[in-house]
Amino acid sequence: MRAVDVILKKRDGLALTRPEIDAFVAGATEGAWADYQVSALLMAIVWRGMTKEETSWLTESMVESGTRLNLSDVPGVKVDKHSTGGVGDKTSLVLAPLAAACGARVPMMSGRGLGHTGGTLDKLEAIPGFRVGLSPEEIRSQLRDMGCALFGQTSEIAPADRKLYALRDVTGTVESIPLISASIMSKKIAEGIDALVLDVKTGSGAFMKSEADARRLAESLVDIGNRADVRTEALVTTMDAPLGRAVGNAIEVVESIETLKGRGPADLQELSVLLAARMLVTGGLAPDEGEALQRVRASLDTGAALEVFRRIVERQGGNPRIVDDYDQLPTTTTRDAIRAERAGYLQALDAKLIGRASLALGAGRDTVDATIDPGAGIRVHAIPGEWVDRGQIIVELLHNHAPNIDGARALAEEAIEIGDGAPTVRPVLLERVGPV
Amino acid sequence: MRAVDVILKKRDGLALTRPEIDAFVAGATEGAWADYQVSALLMAIVWRGMTKEETSWLTESMVESGTRLNLSDVPGVKVDKHSTGGVGDKTSLVLAPLAAACGARVPMMSGRGLGHTGGTLDKLEAIPGFRVGLSPEEIRSQLRDMGCALFGQTSEIAPADRKLYALRDVTGTVESIPLISASIMSKKIAEGIDALVLDVKTGSGAFMKSEADARRLAESLVDIGNRADVRTEALVTTMDAPLGRAVGNAIEVVESIETLKGRGPADLQELSVLLAARMLVTGGLAPDEGEALQRVRASLDTGAALEVFRRIVERQGGNPRIVDDYDQLPTTTTRDAIRAERAGYLQALDAKLIGRASLALGAGRDTVDATIDPGAGIRVHAIPGEWVDRGQIIVELLHNHAPNIDGARALAEEAIEIGDGAPTVRPVLLERVGPV
Repeated sequence: MRAVDVILKKRDGLALTRPEIDAFVAGATEGAWADYQVSALLMAIVWRGMTKEETSWLTESMVESGTRLNLSDVPGVKVDKHSTGGVGDKTSLVLAPLAAACGARVPMMSGRGLGHTGGTLDKLEAIPGFRVGLSPEEIRSQLRDMGCALFGQTSEIAPADRKLYALRDVTGTVESIPLISASIMSKKIAEGIDALVLDVKTGSGAFMKSEADARRLAESLVDIGNRADVRTEALVTTMDAPLGRAVGNAIEVVESIETLKGRGPADLQELSVLLAARMLVTGGLAPDEGEALQRVRASLDTGAALEVFRRIVERQGGNPRIVDDYDQLPTTTTRDAIRAERAGYLQALDAKLIGRASLALGAGRDTVDATIDPGAGIRVHAIPGEWVDRGQIIVELLHNHAPNIDGARALAEEAIEIGDGAPTVRPVLLERVGPV
Repeated sequence: MRAVDVILKKRDGLALTRPEIDAFVAGATEGAWADYQVSALLMAIVWRGMTKEETSWLTESMVESGTRLNLSDVPGVKVDKHSTGGVGDKTSLVLAPLAAACGARVPMMSGRGLGHTGGTLDKLEAIPGFRVGLSPEEIRSQLRDMGCALFGQTSEIAPADRKLYALRDVTGTVESIPLISASIMSKKIAEGIDALVLDVKTGSGAFMKSEADARRLAESLVDIGNRADVRTEALVTTMDAPLGRAVGNAIEVVESIETLKGRGPADLQELSVLLAARMLVTGGLAPDEGEALQRVRASLDTGAALEVFRRIVERQGGNPRIVDDYDQLPTTTTRDAIRAERAGYLQALDAKLIGRASLALGAGRDTVDATIDPGAGIRVHAIPGEWVDRGQIIVELLHNHAPNIDGARALAEEAIEIGDGAPTVRPVLLERVGPV
C-alpha cells in the first residue's frame, strides 16, 4: 500500500479502511511514511473528517503503537477522568482522592501544561520531592494500597500520539475532532481502565470555543470509549473564567488541599464533587448520581479524601507536611495587584488571557522544554458577576521578578471587563453526553 | 512570520498575502520551511484554492526563485507554446519550425515524459546526437540565427517548481488548478517570452478529464500570463484518442517530419497549423487568424519550415540526414499487431490506455530516472469513427522484446472499443480562452 494512495483517498473525501489507517499510524511512528506524507494526510483529515469507525480505528491503532498498562491483577473498578484543559483547572487533584476514598481505583495519567493551559503534572511537581514517573509495578501497588496513583505518560504508551501531535503542532492540523479524539482516547484506553468521565471544556480558556464544537468533541470521545469497551461519558463545562481562585502550580495545590478540607471555592468544589460522583456511577460503583454525590460529599466531610491525598503525596516521594503547612511549598517574592479602574459589575475575567498572563509570569511553558516557576501564578480576588469598587484588587500577580512582568500585567488588565449591569454568568455544567 | 501561521490562515480559507506566499516559496526552496509544513500547506491549497492574485503571486515568486532566460538582446517577438500533455502529441516538433519560418522567435523549453504522457525532450533525443542541454548563449544565438531552439529546463529556471512538484507528487497534492497553473506558468514566464499559446488538453489521455476543468485551468493560465505581461491565450483541445498515428519517440519524430513535408495525419497537421497561427496572432506578427493561417500553410507548402527543422537538428548536434532517411533513427525488432475482434465502427481508442501500453513497451518512464527505449511505441492504423473489418490491424506494438509485452497488449486491447453505430467524435478544437 502506497502512502500517496491513502492520502489521495482521504483527499477525495473517502473513508479509509482499517488496514489503511494501520499503515498510516505504523508508517508515521516507524518512519515508513515520510513526515511530509503524514502531514499531508493530517491536513486532508482536517479537511474531510473521519467517520466514527475511522476515528475508532485510528484510536485503536494508536493504542497498539505502544503497550497498555496492565491493571488486570488490580482488584476493583478502574476509573479515570480526563479534562480537555483549562485555566485554574485543578479538579484532578481533588477528585482523584475523592473517588478513591469512595472505592474507585483511579490510575490517573496526566500531562504537562502548554501555552495558556496548566498541566496536572506541573502542579504535582510543585510539591517538593513529588515523583510523577512511576513504573507500572508502582502504579499497580499504589492502586491496590490506596486506590489512586498520579503519574505521567511513559514513552511506551501510544508513541504514535507523541509523533502525530508533534507534527500537528507545527503544521496547523491540531483542530480536528477526530484527531483530537484519537489523541485523547488512545492514551486513556491504554491505561487499561473500565470507565472514564470526560470533562470537555468550552469558552475562551478552552480549546473548544463554542459549545457546539465541545458537544461534537464530547460525542466523538464517548463513542470511541464505548466502542473500546470503556464505559465513557462526558460533561461539557464552562471555561470562560479561571476555575477557582488560583492559577499557577503551588497555589493550585494549596487550593486543591483547601477544597479537600471543605474550604474550597464553590465552582471548584461543585465540579470536583460532580465529576467524582459521575466516576462512581459510570464505574458501576454507585447505583445513581444521588447516592454517588452523597458518598463523595461524605468522603469530603470526613476528611477521608484528604487522607488519601496525604498518602499519595507521601508514597510518591512528596513532603506530606505540605498538607498542613503550605509554607513548605514554593512561593514568590513579589505580588503585583491589578485593581479595578472603575466601579461596576465584573463582566468577565477572560480565562485565556489570565492563562497567558500566568504563562508570562513563568508559571507555564510556551515550548515543551521550557522550565517553569512553580511558585508563580495569579490569585483571583473577584469573579464575574460580582460588584467591584474602583481600586479594588481584581487579581494579584505572584512572581519572582518575572522578566515579562509588563506583558503579564497588560494581559491581566485586558482580561478584566467591568460594566454597569449584572452580567449573565453561565453555570459550570452545560451538558451531559453519553454513555451510549 | 511562522510557517504554521501561514498554514493556519490557508487552512481556515483565507487568502494569503504576497509576503506570506514569498515566505512559503523561499522557505520550501531554501529549507527554512520543513517539508512537512510545505506539504501541509499544499494540501490546504488543494482544499481551499487560491484567488487569482494569490496564484499570480505564487507564480511570480516561483519565477523569482531562480533566474530568467535573458532574451532582451534577441531581436523580434519571442513566442512559445505549451501543452498540458497528451498521448502522441508531437505538435511542438511541427509548430516550432512553422512559427519560426514565419518570423517568430521560439525559445521552446520542454519537459520529459512521465507516466502515460510523452515528452518533447525524449522525442528529440531519439534523434542520434541531438543535444537538448543548451546554454543561455546557445539559445540566444540559435534564436537569432534560425528563430528557434528546442531545449530542456535548466536547474536555474524556477527551482521552487522542481522542489514543490517533487513533494506534490508523493503527497496527493498534484490536482489543484492554482498549483498546476503556477507550475506551468513560472517556467514559461522565466523564458523571457512576449507571447504564449497554451494547448490545454481534455479527455481520457489528458490531465484534465472534463472540459469544464480544462476551461478553468485555461482561464487560470491565461490570467497569470497576462498579469505577468506575457500576451497569453489558450485553446482547449481534445485528447480522447492519440494525436496522429504514432505514439512513442522515434516514430513520433518521423511523423513530425512527414507533417512538415505536408504528408502528416489530418488531426496533427490541423492542430499544429492552428497553434502556429495563434502564436503569430498572439505575438502580433499577423493581424488576424486568416492571414496567419495562410502564412503558416505557405511555410509548410514551400518546405521552409522543414528547412528550419533540419537546421535545428544540425545545430543541436543531431544527424540532419534523419530528415530524409528515417532508417538513421532507432527502430525495433518486433511488431505485434492488435486486430479487430469483430467488425464495426471503431468507437474509441482510449488515449490513456494507449499511452500506458506505450509505456509498458519501454517508450516512456514511470519514474523520473527510468531509461526509455527510443524506438519503441505504437503505430495507430485505425482511428475512432472509422469502419473496421474483423481481423483488421487496429494498432501495432513496436518493441525490442519488451518484458512486459503481455501487459502492453492487454492495455492496447482494452483501449479498443468497436460497436455498431458510427460514433460521435469530438473535434480537435473545443474552446478558445483569452487573451484577456
